[in-house]
Amino acid sequence: MTKDLWSDRYASRANGLSASEVRALFAVVSRPEVVSLAGGMPFVPALPKERMIESFQSLMSDRSAVALQYSGGQGDPKLREHIQEIMALEGIKSDIDNIVVTTGSQHGLDLVSSLFLDPGDVVLAEGPSYVGALGVFRARQAHIEHVYTDDNGISPEALAQTIKRVQAAGKNIKFLYLVPNFANPSGVTLAAERRAQILEICRRNRILVLEDNVYGLLYFEEKAPEALRSLDEDGVIYLGSFSKILVPGFRVGYVLAPPSIKDKLVLANESAVLCPSAFSQMMISEYLSTNDWKAQISVFRDEYRLRRDAALSAMNEYLPNLKTTKPGGGFYLWVDLPEGVDSKKMLPKAVENLVAYTPGTAFYGNGTGQEFLRISYSYPTPENIKVGVERLAKTISAELELVT
Amino acid sequence: MTKDLWSDRYASRANGLSASEVRALFAVVSRPEVVSLAGGMPFVPALPKERMIESFQSLMSDRSAVALQYSGGQGDPKLREHIQEIMALEGIKSDIDNIVVTTGSQHGLDLVSSLFLDPGDVVLAEGPSYVGALGVFRARQAHIEHVYTDDNGISPEALAQTIKRVQAAGKNIKFLYLVPNFANPSGVTLAAERRAQILEICRRNRILVLEDNVYGLLYFEEKAPEALRSLDEDGVIYLGSFSKILVPGFRVGYVLAPPSIKDKLVLANESAVLCPSAFSQMMISEYLSTNDWKAQISVFRDEYRLRRDAALSAMNEYLPNLKTTKPGGGFYLWVDLPEGVDSKKMLPKAVENLVAYTPGTAFYGNGTGQEFLRISYSYPTPENIKVGVERLAKTISAELELVT
Repeated sequence: MTKDLWSDRYASRANGLSASEVRALFAVVSRPEVVSLAGGMPFVPALPKERMIESFQSLMSDRSAVALQYSGGQGDPKLREHIQEIMALEGIKSDIDNIVVTTGSQHGLDLVSSLFLDPGDVVLAEGPSYVGALGVFRARQAHIEHVYTDDNGISPEALAQTIKRVQAAGKNIKFLYLVPNFANPSGVTLAAERRAQILEICRRNRILVLEDNVYGLLYFEEKAPEALRSLDEDGVIYLGSFSKILVPGFRVGYVLAPPSIKDKLVLANESAVLCPSAFSQMMISEYLSTNDWKAQISVFRDEYRLRRDAALSAMNEYLPNLKTTKPGGGFYLWVDLPEGVDSKKMLPKAVENLVAYTPGTAFYGNGTGQEFLRISYSYPTPENIKVGVERLAKTISAELELVT
Repeated sequence: MTKDLWSDRYASRANGLSASEVRALFAVVSRPEVVSLAGGMPFVPALPKERMIESFQSLMSDRSAVALQYSGGQGDPKLREHIQEIMALEGIKSDIDNIVVTTGSQHGLDLVSSLFLDPGDVVLAEGPSYVGALGVFRARQAHIEHVYTDDNGISPEALAQTIKRVQAAGKNIKFLYLVPNFANPSGVTLAAERRAQILEICRRNRILVLEDNVYGLLYFEEKAPEALRSLDEDGVIYLGSFSKILVPGFRVGYVLAPPSIKDKLVLANESAVLCPSAFSQMMISEYLSTNDWKAQISVFRDEYRLRRDAALSAMNEYLPNLKTTKPGGGFYLWVDLPEGVDSKKMLPKAVENLVAYTPGTAFYGNGTGQEFLRISYSYPTPENIKVGVERLAKTISAELELVT
């Protein structure tokens, strides 16, 4: 370990940075003999690459001088029209002037957080919640309060109580952050009847809602309820992404925000990266203009449904006594472990048994979550999912023998 | 103007965001009848787009599953090898483990600033200095102190004096930020003999040097002196980019940092964007692997040399009495205006005369600089540069008649 000559010079916020537990798994996951149920990688081979090549050729022959150049900080207007159309599928009426294109929705989260979070501010989040968002909030030195969440999503009663308690302690709650559809990591969807209640509670308490909806169009049976943003234009900042409905390799996401917030967001985006990649934006725009992208999303839905079915049926076969969520879309199962089994401590043994998952602790900002684990079924083949769950069952059995 | 319902909810740092003066010009610049000497756009048509298409096809046929997927937060190892090779051209010995790929060098600046700058910290910068860096420092609520800079770059004596004065006022100086080669906006290059002196002064005062060297390889006659980083591995954070030596549309830059800083930088990068675009990185890597990229940089040098010559000769013809820098590389001339002429106030009249430039005020953090303007010669044709300077001369003449 090298000595850090500059250790006394960092900003106070540099202490908020920590390696995500998911990240530590990357090295393990890349070994081909390990079945990874850990990272939430989209199944990109389902995308026809010939169509990508066509889009590229068309882009280079018509508009290479623009695609390879610097561009505006708000994002390509043509792409913003496509984004408007995509969001309309979930009931959102928007003006393209209020859409900002970002370097993945992660950067949207980072930029919005940079605008609102002072050290010590509170962010409310589902329990469990997306690890990458928790990392962003922590990096801004915000405090995360998890709100009780069940199979119908975050509980309005628990939300109201948590707000009351946190405010009584004199703290400033800036956001409620949630993934309302097919959530990462739980797979649950916020019930339609809860949406209006939650918006009303937040409005009353002047808390902005950050709606992170990157999985909404990946439903398997029924469509998700309409977006929270479709019910409230002023109180919701909506985050979307092409990473799950197209590919993550271009790093293109978007934010729909109330106009004044949008203005500041564009400035923050320009300050951070000058402009999002013109090339990435125009590639996506060209692809969407010349392909039946709705049919492509439907292909993805079929791929992920197959995998969800494989995961649930393997759970039923090898771990019938464990409680698991039954996701209606998205990438993840959330598994409740038998008493005494600690998902974080068990992980090295699972890897010895050639299966990886993400421990529940990654998804809580307060060190809890040991009794859960997340299974990502998005990338492995259905056959490998089955093998992975069988290996997981073997690992849990061995762990239980140690416990009893 | 919409009322901002959330105006009392922003973080204190949101006030540090301001629209750059360069940005306000974008709308003007895009009118075809205006000769823009304003934005520093690279001349991307000089890049053979057939070669880009070949790189894309090869990438899609061999490695599409990786290029379209999420990737690591530090950047593609193969690309980092190319970066190592590029930096070696300026005397830098590096380990690819200490290189972090960023979403343009702008995001490198933003990430490094996020690690080190607390509100109220001081950043030392050349006078004038790159507008995009000043914006990043301001967004972190840092205070910018310009150090006297002449035709040989920043002055070591002035640097020592400024440090003494600022430290006497009890302030914490975190960085010296500089663009040592063919600087934006001045076009000047830091003399070789000053480099060691400046490093020594900074080392003694525990001030990190941020070396932003995106123009170094675009020299017209003599190579720039070796990089500051080649003289000091521990005290310099080095920023580079593919935007000027290849194209900006992919948004790929890089940071070379001492190991402990690099570790934190990777975490900050992951928190902000999860990973830089795998696709952009692999496109560049594929292009560099299969093309004579040094010859391509040489083509860019020839293009920019032609334009620099056109700009200097037009200045000599139409504005012979004005002092201007004589850049040995890069994109910019820095022009000293006659007494009484205010570059910011004059801009609308210049635009009426169908020429645009950037007022000197953009490049100072303290509201000064009215007596200067920046000419970018990187993008227009040599003929248009001549036309633009002629229009500028006409505008200045009319302004002088008003003054006297």
